[in-house]
Amino acid sequence: MEKVRPALLKGFDQEFLPGEQLQFNALVDSIRASFELFGFLPIETPSAERREILTSKGAMEKEIYAITRLAGDPGDTDAARGALHFDLTVPLARYVAMREHALAFPFRRYQIQRVWRGENPQANKGRFREFYQCDIDIIGKGELGYLAEAEIPSVIYMVFSGMQIGDFRIRLNNRKLLKGLLQHFKVSEEIAPEAFRIMDKAEKETHEKTRADLQALGLPEATAAQILKLIVEKSSTDETLDKLSFYADKNELAAQGLKELDQVVKAIRLFEVPDSAFGVDLGVVRGLDYYTGTIYETTLVAHPELGSICSGGRYDDLASYFTNTRLPGVGISIGLSRLFSRMKDAGLLKPLEKTPAEVLVTTMDAKYLARYIGLANELRRAGVNTELYLEGARLGKQLEYASKKGFRLALIAGESEFAKDAVQIKNLRTQIPIEVTLGRLVEAVRAALLEGRT
Amino acid sequence: MEKVRPALLKGFDQEFLPGEQLQFNALVDSIRASFELFGFLPIETPSAERREILTSKGAMEKEIYAITRLAGDPGDTDAARGALHFDLTVPLARYVAMREHALAFPFRRYQIQRVWRGENPQANKGRFREFYQCDIDIIGKGELGYLAEAEIPSVIYMVFSGMQIGDFRIRLNNRKLLKGLLQHFKVSEEIAPEAFRIMDKAEKETHEKTRADLQALGLPEATAAQILKLIVEKSSTDETLDKLSFYADKNELAAQGLKELDQVVKAIRLFEVPDSAFGVDLGVVRGLDYYTGTIYETTLVAHPELGSICSGGRYDDLASYFTNTRLPGVGISIGLSRLFSRMKDAGLLKPLEKTPAEVLVTTMDAKYLARYIGLANELRRAGVNTELYLEGARLGKQLEYASKKGFRLALIAGESEFAKDAVQIKNLRTQIPIEVTLGRLVEAVRAALLEGRT
Repeated sequence: MEKVRPALLKGFDQEFLPGEQLQFNALVDSIRASFELFGFLPIETPSAERREILTSKGAMEKEIYAITRLAGDPGDTDAARGALHFDLTVPLARYVAMREHALAFPFRRYQIQRVWRGENPQANKGRFREFYQCDIDIIGKGELGYLAEAEIPSVIYMVFSGMQIGDFRIRLNNRKLLKGLLQHFKVSEEIAPEAFRIMDKAEKETHEKTRADLQALGLPEATAAQILKLIVEKSSTDETLDKLSFYADKNELAAQGLKELDQVVKAIRLFEVPDSAFGVDLGVVRGLDYYTGTIYETTLVAHPELGSICSGGRYDDLASYFTNTRLPGVGISIGLSRLFSRMKDAGLLKPLEKTPAEVLVTTMDAKYLARYIGLANELRRAGVNTELYLEGARLGKQLEYASKKGFRLALIAGESEFAKDAVQIKNLRTQIPIEVTLGRLVEAVRAALLEGRT
Repeated sequence: MEKVRPALLKGFDQEFLPGEQLQFNALVDSIRASFELFGFLPIETPSAERREILTSKGAMEKEIYAITRLAGDPGDTDAARGALHFDLTVPLARYVAMREHALAFPFRRYQIQRVWRGENPQANKGRFREFYQCDIDIIGKGELGYLAEAEIPSVIYMVFSGMQIGDFRIRLNNRKLLKGLLQHFKVSEEIAPEAFRIMDKAEKETHEKTRADLQALGLPEATAAQILKLIVEKSSTDETLDKLSFYADKNELAAQGLKELDQVVKAIRLFEVPDSAFGVDLGVVRGLDYYTGTIYETTLVAHPELGSICSGGRYDDLASYFTNTRLPGVGISIGLSRLFSRMKDAGLLKPLEKTPAEVLVTTMDAKYLARYIGLANELRRAGVNTELYLEGARLGKQLEYASKKGFRLALIAGESEFAKDAVQIKNLRTQIPIEVTLGRLVEAVRAALLEGRT
C-alpha cells in the first residue's frame, strides 16, 4: 500500500512528546492557579465564531482562517459563515454582550485557549499559526475604577514568580500621558499613530534610526531628540514620575495620565509588588489605539531578547460593536506557546517536580500475573499513579521502558520475593533497590516517592 | 453605530457561564487524574492536519472542515492544505508514525481535545459540531497482548466511579466472535457489514423491525430469529460465555473470539472490576470494521437513553496508512461535550466541592483601602483564592455580587472592627458572621472554608 507521509502543517507544528507535554501542562496549571488565587473564573468560547463578529473591529482578514466543508457545503449556510478566532478579546466582547444579564460585574474571567493567525510562522522564534493564549480581564459595567489597573501587575507578579523563570520586570506606562506628551511636542493627531509605532519599536532599533524615523515624520530635530531621550532614559519609578511633572504642568492630558500613573503605582505597592519587579517606563507604548489608560509589558531581565512575555492595558469600551452598554476593562495576555518555546531554547524549563509516571509494576514471571495485578490495584487504590507492564518481556526490557518513560520507581518481584511475601522497590534514578514486605508496600512506595522529590 | 448581533454559530455553541465551566473543568480534571493513575501520559496534537492525512482512511469529506484564509491566501499553499481533525485517532496514528523512534512502547497516551465534525447539530441531544473527546489508547510495536484489552475496563471503571454519576455497565463483546457467528449462520461476507449495522441498531428498534431488516437482507426467518435472540437475550457473563460454547464448537473464528473473551473476562476480574459493573453483551457490535478483538460500550443503568457514554475496542494496526510498522492497539473514547450536556439535562451534575471563588474581601470604607488590600495579600500568600472588591459600592451590592459569583465567604470590616483589630467572616451560605482578630485571620478562614465543605 502506498503510504501517506506523516507530517505537520507549517505553523501548526508545536507538538510535544509526552515529557514535554507534561511540562507544558504544568505551566498551564500554574498559570491557572495564579489566576484563580485572584478570583478570576474560567470561561471557554468556541473556536469558530460568525465571521461578522471577528471582522467587526476591522481585523486583518488575511490573517483569519475561515472554515468550510472539505467536500462542499450541503446547503448549510450557517456554518459556512464561520471562522477561527484570532485572539480571545473579540470572543470575550461577544460573550459579555450576549450574557450581560447573567454575569456578575465587575466580570473577572480567565481564558486559556488556542487561537489561530495566518501569520508567517517562525518556529525558531516561537511564532506559530496555532498557539495558546492565556488572558485575564476585569470588565466593569458602566464604570471601572483605577484599582483594577493596579491589581493586574500583582497578578502578573504572582504568575511569573510561580513559574520560577528568574527576575522579570513589569513595565508600566499610560496612554493618556503618551498622548499628552505628543500634544505638548506639537505632534499632529494625523501622524501620532505613526510616531507611536516608531516609539514602540525604539528598543529594538539604534537611537540614530529612531531619531531619523521621527524626523522623517516631519518632527524637528530637537523634538525627535527629546522624545528619544524620554523613551530610552531609564531611571527609578519615583524619579521618572518626578521628571514627568514638568510636562504635566504644560499639558492637561499629560497631567491626567500622570495622575493615573501615580495612583496606580501607589496601589501596586500596597499590593506588595516589590519595586524591583515593576517600574514606570516610557518606552512602553503598545501599538493599539484600543488602550486608553495604563499599559503593561513584561520582560525577563536575563532574556530581553524574548521581548514582552505578557502585555495588555486599560480600555474604555470592550464591546461597542455589539452592545450599547459601556464596558470599560483592563486585561493582559500571555502568549504561552511562544513563551514555552523560548523558555525551552533558553534552558528555563525545569524538570517536573511530580510526574504522573510514578510506579511501574514489572511482570517478570507470568505465573504470578494475579499477584502483579493485585500490586497495581493496591497502589492505585492508594492514589499512586501505577502502570502494570502488560506484555511478556524480559526484565531488562521492562526497566528500559520504565526509564524511557520517566518512571520514578519500579516494583520487581519473582519466585524468591513472593516466597518471602516481599517485593523490591527500585529507585530508577539512583538504581538502588530496597526490599519491603507486602504489608508495608503503600507506605514504602509513598516514602520512596517523597524521598526522590527532595 | 450599527451593532453586530452577538450570537454563536450553529453547532459551535456549547458555551458556559463561569459556574458551569467550573463543573466542566472539574469533570476534565477527574478524567485526567483517572487516566494518569493508570500510567497514561498526555499528548496534544494540532487542531489542523494536512488534508491527505485526515482523508487517508476514506473519512467522510462532507463532515471535515477545511481551513482557508478569509481574504484569499497570500501565495501560501501549505496552510491551504489543512483541515480540522474530526477525531483523535487519525492524529494519533500520524503522531505515532512520525515519532516511532522517540516513543516508548507499549505507548500509552491520553488526549483531551476539541474535534470538529460537520454533522447535523442537535443541542438538545448534546450533539455539537465542535466538541470535546477524551481518548486513551495503548499501542504496541509489532504486538500487543490481551492484557491491555482487560485493563481498559478497569480504567473505564475508575473514570466513571470517580465521576459519581450512578451505576454504569461496561458491556463487552468480541469482533471475532461476532464474525464467526455470522459465518456459522451462513451470512455471506458481502452482506455481513450491513447485518452488523442492523445488529448494532437493534437496541433502539423493536424486535420485529430488527428481524424484518435481517430478513430483508436475505437471511432465512429462522436465522434472523436466532441472531435476534442472541443479541437481545441478556444473562450473566458466565452464562453467556457458557451458552456461546455451543457455537465455538461449530466455527473456528467464533471459538477464537470466545477464547479471547474468556481470557479478558478472567483478567478483568483480577483488575477488581465488580461483575455488577461489566458484562459480556452480544448486543454490542460497533459499526467500524476497524475493530478486530474486544469491543466496549458503557451505559448508565438509570439513563439508558443517553446511549453509550464510552466506547472503543481492539484494532490490529493503527497507522498502516503512514508506516510499515505494525502497530496493534486498544483504545476508548469519551464524548465529553455530549456526556456533560446529557448529565446536565438528567440532573447528574453535582455542585462543586471546591470553588475557586473562596473569599471576597469587601471594601466598605475607602479610607481603609490599604488595610483591605493587606487582608487580600495575606490570604493569597496563604494560598486562599481571594478577590478584593475594587469598586466603590455599598456593602449590600458587594454581598450581592459575592452571592451571584458563588463566593463561600465574605470578609467585612469598617471603623468598629478595625478599632478592635478584628474582621467579620461571613459564611455566604448560612449568612452567619463570626468576628475574629486579625492575628487569627488565615486560620479562621481556613476553618470556615473546611466547615462549609463537609
